[in-house]
Amino acid sequence: MTELNFDTKILIVGLGVIGGGYAKALTYRGYKHVRCITKEPKDVDYAIAHGMIEYGTSEIDEALIAESELIVFALYPHVFREWVEDNQHLFSPGTIITDVTGVKSGIVREIQAILRPDVEFISAHPMAGREKSGVEYSNAEVFRGANYIVVPTDKNTENAIAICSKLGEELGFAKISELSIEEHDEMIAFLSQLTHCIAVTLMTSNSSDGLEKYTGDSFRDLTRIAKINDLMWSELFMQNREALLAEMDSFSKKFNEFREMLERGDAEAMRSKMRLASNRRELFDKPTK
Amino acid sequence: MTELNFDTKILIVGLGVIGGGYAKALTYRGYKHVRCITKEPKDVDYAIAHGMIEYGTSEIDEALIAESELIVFALYPHVFREWVEDNQHLFSPGTIITDVTGVKSGIVREIQAILRPDVEFISAHPMAGREKSGVEYSNAEVFRGANYIVVPTDKNTENAIAICSKLGEELGFAKISELSIEEHDEMIAFLSQLTHCIAVTLMTSNSSDGLEKYTGDSFRDLTRIAKINDLMWSELFMQNREALLAEMDSFSKKFNEFREMLERGDAEAMRSKMRLASNRRELFDKPTK
Repeated sequence: MTELNFDTKILIVGLGVIGGGYAKALTYRGYKHVRCITKEPKDVDYAIAHGMIEYGTSEIDEALIAESELIVFALYPHVFREWVEDNQHLFSPGTIITDVTGVKSGIVREIQAILRPDVEFISAHPMAGREKSGVEYSNAEVFRGANYIVVPTDKNTENAIAICSKLGEELGFAKISELSIEEHDEMIAFLSQLTHCIAVTLMTSNSSDGLEKYTGDSFRDLTRIAKINDLMWSELFMQNREALLAEMDSFSKKFNEFREMLERGDAEAMRSKMRLASNRRELFDKPTK
Repeated sequence: MTELNFDTKILIVGLGVIGGGYAKALTYRGYKHVRCITKEPKDVDYAIAHGMIEYGTSEIDEALIAESELIVFALYPHVFREWVEDNQHLFSPGTIITDVTGVKSGIVREIQAILRPDVEFISAHPMAGREKSGVEYSNAEVFRGANYIVVPTDKNTENAIAICSKLGEELGFAKISELSIEEHDEMIAFLSQLTHCIAVTLMTSNSSDGLEKYTGDSFRDLTRIAKINDLMWSELFMQNREALLAEMDSFSKKFNEFREMLERGDAEAMRSKMRLASNRRELFDKPTK
């Protein structure tokens, strides 16, 4: 394919909270041929009932796959790899495939290495996860104002990169960026994985037991993401272990510096840190929807 | 005073984001005599223009103070103490005073020690801070569904405790609890102060520099409170230093345990922590407004 438009035949594989969000966003935007393959027949029924897709099935529908010009994989990393191995003979030449995987170092080069040479995989990461899983929690609105990252390698063409970027725009993302695999995984170790480690730690420390009737919003905010899909996140952590360990160590070091300021009663040093934090945080506000 | 009702003459001292929220909540609820004393004349003008108060002034209005039955102090801790020292001769006998201070060990016994014996101070903590300061950001809605903690000592009467609890109900808080000074400060070190230390650390680590165009909501959530009033929070941290240091150490220990699970590749141990975190976090969801 050379262009993404309302007539493009798009197949979403895996209709969970993210795949479902893609289906809604594209169909509501005007894309006429958004289809899906997903494991549970009830999820197909849900998507049809909610006008999210043109067609869906829980089977490996050979004609459907062959007809697809753009295929989006919204699966766990190891399931994604197996699916491609088992079914890539059904792709048509020229098909572009993309994904939503949260860690890139393992999966991207693996898929590109095993993939047929007449099909191109361009990887992307929509930065809009939810703490709930399942298609019934999918929501196209979460992409509005959010960030979308394209992760090309030297195997990718300008055409595929442009199509993948346009997909991000069409989904409603506010900022589309490009990062290398290494840049992406280092960034994600800090912004996403470290924050999940902190939330889980806060929520499982003895001090948090029974405190729900005293809490304010600070603690609620810092632990919202402690409602975590343990299977998916432990897999993502393991795939990015070295980068995440480095970010955890760096955080501990900085946290300890702050602790020492407090211990020696250095209010000025704490205030200086707080002012830097306040100023930097301004930049991270989400654009108004 | 022996009863809080719509005719009670209430004085709010310090019309910032919390004092302003109290004024709005009480006036909109039906309280007829909500008045204020605050430093800036423009804040009085704002409150009058928005129908938040019956009367306000930036002066030490002797008649106003003498007439007040319930006085709420929404000031920085050190300003609160000075205000009481300078002006308590103007209180009428039987007046009840309360506060919104975030740390109790320093201020409560200090105030109770210097206070006239015919006036009673009952301390409270509304768990509904905002990252913005100033009366123009005040909002009575933030109290809905939130927690309110009364912190009595052996100097308090049942009457004052009941009035202070009723104030919390009238403001719209969902859960009213009682804690001792020590319980309160230990709880606040964990739920509120530790979380602010984490947010500031995340926001001032080198890794966060320039990452705004890649971020997702996890990092935004964990750093919302990094927009911090540095003067107030450094004062609160110093007033609760020992408890906060203990919570920081406890967090570091648990965080390091998680790091070790990741380093040795123990996905099962990580998953077990994540499941505990998810289950516990359910309890912390805010009641629907």
